[in-house]
Amino acid sequence: MVVEIQIASEGFNAHYDITEQIASVLPKFETSEGIAKVLAVGSTVGLISMRYEEGAVEDLLAALERISPREHDYAHYRTSNDLNGFAHVWSSIMGSSVLVPYKNSRLAVSHTHRIVLFDFDLQPAPRTIFISN
Amino acid sequence: MVVEIQIASEGFNAHYDITEQIASVLPKFETSEGIAKVLAVGSTVGLISMRYEEGAVEDLLAALERISPREHDYAHYRTSNDLNGFAHVWSSIMGSSVLVPYKNSRLAVSHTHRIVLFDFDLQPAPRTIFISN
Amino acid sequence: MVVEIQIASEGFNAHYDITEQIASVLPKFETSEGIAKVLAVGSTVGLISMRYEEGAVEDLLAALERISPREHDYAHYRTSNDLNGFAHVWSSIMGSSVLVPYKNSRLAVSHTHRIVLFDFDLQPAPRTIFISN
Repeated sequence: MVVEIQIASEGFNAHYDITEQIASVLPKFETSEGIAKVLAVGSTVGLISMRYEEGAVEDLLAALERISPREHDYAHYRTSNDLNGFAHVWSSIMGSSVLVPYKNSRLAVSHTHRIVLFDFDLQPAPRTIFISN
Repeated sequence: MVVEIQIASEGFNAHYDITEQIASVLPKFETSEGIAKVLAVGSTVGLISMRYEEGAVEDLLAALERISPREHDYAHYRTSNDLNGFAHVWSSIMGSSVLVPYKNSRLAVSHTHRIVLFDFDLQPAPRTIFISN
Repeated sequence: MVVEIQIASEGFNAHYDITEQIASVLPKFETSEGIAKVLAVGSTVGLISMRYEEGAVEDLLAALERISPREHDYAHYRTSNDLNGFAHVWSSIMGSSVLVPYKNSRLAVSHTHRIVLFDFDLQPAPRTIFISN
């Protein structure tokens, strides 16, 4: 079974805690315990587990900016005419696939372990997440 | 089926090769071949496959230190009063979900492909890893 | 069920779009929809989803070079006498496990969402990818 959820993302550096949406899918699975597979579709998004609080988000975005600054001469602009070159790099480094354990059809992690979608693209867009057991 | 293992972690920059613990779970699975899902719980840990030897570990930690130095003015400190801001960044960049192939209920990778838990937090803590098929 | 594919990799900074090879495995699965698990074996390779075009690849490799330059005094050389210290770091940061959704035995992502194998090692080598549902 695979479930698809949509996030109406605002684009550039938006981040969304999707933990509760994932939790709401778990009772639909045939098994009450296991590890769920979750991924975000797209090449300018990231999906990670993290302590989701303002400071940690700011620090992470600052580190990505140090690794690959937004204002920079990206080859992606020359080959695609798109100014989101940094967003592709950030997405590749962050990754967009995570695993999430569950027991008794509920998440088996503490309340501070959140699954967060990051969108680095310059335009708002609907973002798709797939969840399966 | 999901199996939980515990590591009594010493905290800051500790690393643990958990490959054998993963291997010991495989015979319990209903299927003798597949890809196991493995994840470490927590927002200051990392879980990766790597060549696990002293030099490679040192190089990786040095790269993380370049990306996001331990001594730095992290927003996480201002919002949570916790000095482990760098640990959250390192964890997000490293990731904490890996896949591991198995055949005949044994790992289907060479002996040098190790699954390693990193703990960047400043305090010792028990760390939980979930494994499922 | 687990399927193994081989890529005859040319080594250093070679990259291979393996999306079609993954797609060709999907009809063999017992279920027609789900999320496939895909991983690349080895400690000097990376496996990610990305917009696979020349500029984005160049930008990503440049970012990895900034994080951990190829020419650098790596501890890995002192402990293993191997000059691929940077390759181990790049692999750990990029990761080598991805999830890929499918429906009706076909990939459920747009044509621009590609699964790409990177090989950072200095020598050509056959590289193994495992795929399972």
